[in-house]
Amino acid sequence: MTGNDTATIDLNADLGEGFGRWHLTDDEALLDIVTSANVACGFHAGDPPTMRRVCELAARRGVAIGAHVAYRDLAGFGRRAMDVPPAELAAETAYQIGALETFARAAGTRVRYVKPHGALYNRTVHDEEQAEAVAEGVALTGLGLPLLGLPGSRLHRAARRAGLPAVSEAFADRAYTAAGTLVPRRAEGAVLTDADQVVARSVGIARDGQVTARDGGTVRVRARSLCVHGDTAGARDLAARVREGLRAAGLRLEPFA
Amino acid sequence: MTGNDTATIDLNADLGEGFGRWHLTDDEALLDIVTSANVACGFHAGDPPTMRRVCELAARRGVAIGAHVAYRDLAGFGRRAMDVPPAELAAETAYQIGALETFARAAGTRVRYVKPHGALYNRTVHDEEQAEAVAEGVALTGLGLPLLGLPGSRLHRAARRAGLPAVSEAFADRAYTAAGTLVPRRAEGAVLTDADQVVARSVGIARDGQVTARDGGTVRVRARSLCVHGDTAGARDLAARVREGLRAAGLRLEPFA
Amino acid sequence: MTGNDTATIDLNADLGEGFGRWHLTDDEALLDIVTSANVACGFHAGDPPTMRRVCELAARRGVAIGAHVAYRDLAGFGRRAMDVPPAELAAETAYQIGALETFARAAGTRVRYVKPHGALYNRTVHDEEQAEAVAEGVALTGLGLPLLGLPGSRLHRAARRAGLPAVSEAFADRAYTAAGTLVPRRAEGAVLTDADQVVARSVGIARDGQVTARDGGTVRVRARSLCVHGDTAGARDLAARVREGLRAAGLRLEPFA
Amino acid sequence: MTGNDTATIDLNADLGEGFGRWHLTDDEALLDIVTSANVACGFHAGDPPTMRRVCELAARRGVAIGAHVAYRDLAGFGRRAMDVPPAELAAETAYQIGALETFARAAGTRVRYVKPHGALYNRTVHDEEQAEAVAEGVALTGLGLPLLGLPGSRLHRAARRAGLPAVSEAFADRAYTAAGTLVPRRAEGAVLTDADQVVARSVGIARDGQVTARDGGTVRVRARSLCVHGDTAGARDLAARVREGLRAAGLRLEPFA
Repeated sequence: MTGNDTATIDLNADLGEGFGRWHLTDDEALLDIVTSANVACGFHAGDPPTMRRVCELAARRGVAIGAHVAYRDLAGFGRRAMDVPPAELAAETAYQIGALETFARAAGTRVRYVKPHGALYNRTVHDEEQAEAVAEGVALTGLGLPLLGLPGSRLHRAARRAGLPAVSEAFADRAYTAAGTLVPRRAEGAVLTDADQVVARSVGIARDGQVTARDGGTVRVRARSLCVHGDTAGARDLAARVREGLRAAGLRLEPFA
Repeated sequence: MTGNDTATIDLNADLGEGFGRWHLTDDEALLDIVTSANVACGFHAGDPPTMRRVCELAARRGVAIGAHVAYRDLAGFGRRAMDVPPAELAAETAYQIGALETFARAAGTRVRYVKPHGALYNRTVHDEEQAEAVAEGVALTGLGLPLLGLPGSRLHRAARRAGLPAVSEAFADRAYTAAGTLVPRRAEGAVLTDADQVVARSVGIARDGQVTARDGGTVRVRARSLCVHGDTAGARDLAARVREGLRAAGLRLEPFA
Repeated sequence: MTGNDTATIDLNADLGEGFGRWHLTDDEALLDIVTSANVACGFHAGDPPTMRRVCELAARRGVAIGAHVAYRDLAGFGRRAMDVPPAELAAETAYQIGALETFARAAGTRVRYVKPHGALYNRTVHDEEQAEAVAEGVALTGLGLPLLGLPGSRLHRAARRAGLPAVSEAFADRAYTAAGTLVPRRAEGAVLTDADQVVARSVGIARDGQVTARDGGTVRVRARSLCVHGDTAGARDLAARVREGLRAAGLRLEPFA
Repeated sequence: MTGNDTATIDLNADLGEGFGRWHLTDDEALLDIVTSANVACGFHAGDPPTMRRVCELAARRGVAIGAHVAYRDLAGFGRRAMDVPPAELAAETAYQIGALETFARAAGTRVRYVKPHGALYNRTVHDEEQAEAVAEGVALTGLGLPLLGLPGSRLHRAARRAGLPAVSEAFADRAYTAAGTLVPRRAEGAVLTDADQVVARSVGIARDGQVTARDGGTVRVRARSLCVHGDTAGARDLAARVREGLRAAGLRLEPFA
């Protein structure tokens, strides 16, 4: 289930993070960098015209479209964990995917995967109930979509139980523990900002399936996709550097889905 | 394009008009009366769990599911006309249909038609720009769905231009002018409340394609569907009476779509 | 800080729990029963016209107006706990109070207290961070409003730290532990439905400051207000019975604020 | 009612036009330029933390705070006209002002005026019903706030009828007809972009109460405030140039309220 033994890797980023007159991401620039686009579906961001446009731009470039499902929380940008009862969360997940599927089809393609956003992503790493609810929502759509997330997460376990593919992603700009898990974001040194280092780690993960852990040792990180960021110009530049570095190392970039 | 020359008629009503803890319609009761359900899609009403449940109940009974698309206006229940630019309105229309399609498919069926709700319904009778936008949104979904509305409306004209079926509905509880158009709701005598009269008019429209106009003359009203209401217990009783009256008159009730 | 040594008691209930076309509570009927109205302020329910109307009706009857502040969650009716960062929660609290104060003043009165709603109420019993944030939001308004809640709650502690009065309420229809805390709602026997029993407990709390605990012993319950419910006809009847029972027992009903 | 015969002028701009993670305006920079801030109140933009922060920044600089009331339309940024019934519009107006007043008071000041935003501004120029509703909403608050708008507008007439001050503003970057009204935005030449010209017109309006009309003649434009824009860096630079130009011409900048 990992792409480490092949010469291919996927780059995913969050796109379409606007609403009405507001826009965070330079979607056109990002779509020239990534191979998979996590598209906001209206609950934390993503008004319908933006969804439509991002799907058209992605389809034109062969970028895979993923449903970036989230809590219903525009004011908090989906970053505030919510105790949504499972049946509601499953239905909200399906709703968002269905809405995005319309624009993907209109653009001549399909939604290829699902990735939870923000607080829902973090919560479904550990919260079995919500992880199951998200997987149930994906299963409801009948599209058989893979769930992109952290290896070992409850989300991935729930995906497999629901008969859905679980696809792993890694973060080249995040420190890893010796156990192969992410160092919590608030810990010192959790986020790496040196471009050369991030590029080197990207290549390490993509080609060798391993990364240097915080303690200096080498740890195995299986991932078919690397998550990059695009919400600032600096992040976008770094994402472009990662893309170039991967290609220079002989890796082929292509959607995992 | 009308069902008047056959012995069948469709009954449509608005369903799923809840949001969160609030619910207006007794969906179970209504679904035993109508043959087509205009299901709220989240913009004026209709949270995802309600949409899912209504689709399941409708599918079980063979009631056709229609997308009741609306302005984004929970506070106004979609009853406040809005100057939504065409590109936004088209995308918002497609978004709502796509979301509902997910739940229809999960219930083993499909969305069969689209009907604008409230102020969008009224506006697209006369407003060419918005009518075209709604039809464009429906066309975007690629589902080839018919648009249910008033004969002679801009909506119907726009549907035909977009290559979509235009299906006519009539209102047995509304007065008609000699020209076959509805008497504006605020005019005296515009809304009929006598149950026997409403039943008789239902039969007249369904079987003979005609109704007594306000001036006493007979006017031709072509309709494949009759719109009934279910937001009060009284309205629901009247709808049940209409159903019985139609069947007693030898008409077969079945979805138009 | 309790009213147990006097012959007065307050009855509070949630009001104005509508939004747009939806309404849960029969506000006019309830306002003839209670002495304090917890008015929804737009985040879980409560559109501006409803807020205005409820304030006018309350003012006319001398019923005290309280701000029923909540998480921003119409879809979940404020019943889904949210990890709102403290600065956001404080500002959201102040926003809701300020909006309601306008309608209270327009009706010739003022907002007299604040009570968190639903998940925010439950969360601020134990969550110090959110309790402090709510108290900070109340303090921000400069109105010096008391916080109505459970004795011993973090909310009350935070209120006192912020220099605000903490006013205790009790629930005559809920079982109490021997320690004087509420039996969790999901436990068996947690909610009492026998009207006579509820009335008797109301009198016991209001007059004697004590109630029979689950284990059969008597436990001290200090409260200046009793919370009653009005979201069903049955609940409203029970609330009316409680009111009558209290008056028959010689207690004076009046707002605590 | 105009400031033309004195040596003072006010500069107003829209501020706080963010929501959650999104922000359009550089509020700190703008607050060093203007003397009056039209602060979004949550309906088209303006989440509570942003409102609080803008009020604090404005108060510190002596910039007057105005309530920038709008239709409830985050998705459309308040730019889509809505047929809101008068009673709803009045209550929504009061709600927004009340919420903002809380943050103004917390910052040691008060809301000083009201200005409708976007589509509500445009609509209340001509629509008597909505103009009256806005004025009624302002009157409801009991704060006696002036309504900032176009001279000759229905809004101003409604303000006067409601016993509220009507304060006129002008646009130095907009072409005027010979009758002293704005050339519609979509007409050719309606918006001026030459900085020197805009500065010169600002001085002409502020000092002399007149401006060169589109036909080359001079037309009288009475205004106590000039509206400038801040939603792009270019607009902000132009606003700063206007400020400098006015001061260089000997005018004193101060809030009209």
